Amino acid sequence: MDINELAERLLAGDRRALARAITLVESGRDDHRAQALELMELVQHSGRQALRLGLSGTPGVGKSTFIESFGMMLIEQGLKVAVLAVDPSSARSGGSILGDKTRMELLTREKNAFIRPSPSQTNLGGVARRTREATQLCEAAGYDVVLIETVGVGQSETVVAQMSDVFLLLLAPAGGDELQGVKRGIMEMADLILVNKADGDLKAAAQRTRADYAGALHLLRRRPQDPEGFPKAATVSAIESAGLSEAWAEMQSLVQWRKEHGHYDQTRADQAQYWFAQDIRNGLLGQLDREPLKTAITDFAQQVGRGELTASRAAEQVLAALTASGTSK
Amino acid sequence: MDINELAERLLAGDRRALARAITLVESGRDDHRAQALELMELVQHSGRQALRLGLSGTPGVGKSTFIESFGMMLIEQGLKVAVLAVDPSSARSGGSILGDKTRMELLTREKNAFIRPSPSQTNLGGVARRTREATQLCEAAGYDVVLIETVGVGQSETVVAQMSDVFLLLLAPAGGDELQGVKRGIMEMADLILVNKADGDLKAAAQRTRADYAGALHLLRRRPQDPEGFPKAATVSAIESAGLSEAWAEMQSLVQWRKEHGHYDQTRADQAQYWFAQDIRNGLLGQLDREPLKTAITDFAQQVGRGELTASRAAEQVLAALTASGTSK
Repeated sequence: MDINELAERLLAGDRRALARAITLVESGRDDHRAQALELMELVQHSGRQALRLGLSGTPGVGKSTFIESFGMMLIEQGLKVAVLAVDPSSARSGGSILGDKTRMELLTREKNAFIRPSPSQTNLGGVARRTREATQLCEAAGYDVVLIETVGVGQSETVVAQMSDVFLLLLAPAGGDELQGVKRGIMEMADLILVNKADGDLKAAAQRTRADYAGALHLLRRRPQDPEGFPKAATVSAIESAGLSEAWAEMQSLVQWRKEHGHYDQTRADQAQYWFAQDIRNGLLGQLDREPLKTAITDFAQQVGRGELTASRAAEQVLAALTASGTSK
Repeated sequence: MDINELAERLLAGDRRALARAITLVESGRDDHRAQALELMELVQHSGRQALRLGLSGTPGVGKSTFIESFGMMLIEQGLKVAVLAVDPSSARSGGSILGDKTRMELLTREKNAFIRPSPSQTNLGGVARRTREATQLCEAAGYDVVLIETVGVGQSETVVAQMSDVFLLLLAPAGGDELQGVKRGIMEMADLILVNKADGDLKAAAQRTRADYAGALHLLRRRPQDPEGFPKAATVSAIESAGLSEAWAEMQSLVQWRKEHGHYDQTRADQAQYWFAQDIRNGLLGQLDREPLKTAITDFAQQVGRGELTASRAAEQVLAALTASGTSK
């Protein structure tokens, strides 16, 4: 494959080129990795900026329905929408391609929508790098909004927040005054909390839940990157497509304010540096999972367990082997 | 210094040799490290096993007074006692040598007591390795009990628990039914919770606090390495030396049960493997803090922040430099 040609077609908005480019950044092969790095450099100065929307929500809150309704609304406004996912657990079920396609039936048929499921990798570091790069590829391919969704397992919310301009938290109406066990750390990442299912029998509960969260958000310290009134809580109904344009207006006004005050560019620069540090870390620790070192480490660990070798000596030998392996490269 | 001679003197119980050996394992110099590894191997088959007691407690609970009283009681029983500390924050105050000596006045004067403050290193990984190795050196030097204390900052409790046979949590009497904000994770590590200051006006409060914790411990799932009734909560008064021999009896019966059921050896083997893995990890990531790489990383990060270089490419170059540096070694 010629990388220059792939880059050109991608920049021209060719969906198949985009799909192929993402497959390339997902590959674990060394030669593919070299091509992917080249490709990323060729497209990085496209001058295009998509709005990167992070979206977290546990199963059952109606995330797919929200993405479908919200995405269709954006498309009706003439925007191009890409949907990516960070779901390290999907590797266990062999990816969720079929699931993603069927659960967003309308969006899938739109020529201005691009849906890509989470890659089949168990390693969150790998999923993170691929999704971050795929986001940049979608941006270069001319998509206006890139929605990055996560089911919020473990650290995946942090991963998504660190690659988003705006981070949305989707919740279901709660019974009584319970706050659905949402962790404080996740609340602090959210720019906008959307309480879904504000329709039918659940409408009153959704409004109560919104008020509870608005109160909780009010107690958080205001962040420098937030205008007055943010973070906010609002209700939506994905099924009735209600509240979606209001939510979109909130996101746009937030982004506008951040752009005017320099926070938008600063956050993107900080995020790039964050991923640079993470990539180094993951790359270094990733060496331990590669053969022949992996087997050697297991052998050493058994000797350490039997007391035949001190932990310190065994670790020293592994580290020495790692440094020495550079010579044969 | 001849390492064989140092090892011999240490095995003969020479306190100055022990102090010197610990200084050696604390050193960051490469030649010292090589000697330290050799020394550890020379003494590791001494056949001696000290009881390794981890002790956590925030400032104000009377930790020093407890160590002094408890240590003196052990010494009166004819035992040799070593006291080590894991306190990554002490590096900021330039070590706490003076503090440790003055706060344990009686113990300091005993020939069968050996007190060594936390090393002046900010890096928890470094402090952990040094303390683990110092514990083994004390053991080889014939100490019967090695007390490893921590103030419980950040991850230091995990560090201490992973190098202890028995983990003690020292608490002060609480007002009312509050559980002093002890994190669940720390409760789950504790084998014995000791509520100190069960004397004078605080005696009733201490007993109430003990009952509260006994109730909380009861709700935890029983661990396979615990006999019936453990983990336990008890009251002590370090100032009046009350409850100390009872607490000591509990620790001994716990260890006896674990030895009989194979958990004692298994835990030590698991701990050695844990430290092997941690040492590799810390050694790998430690490369990033060394020059000239450290400066190079800072430069790259600035370029990434300005958008001159992609995060992925910059990380690749750092990783390549790390692997290539093996050639010059």
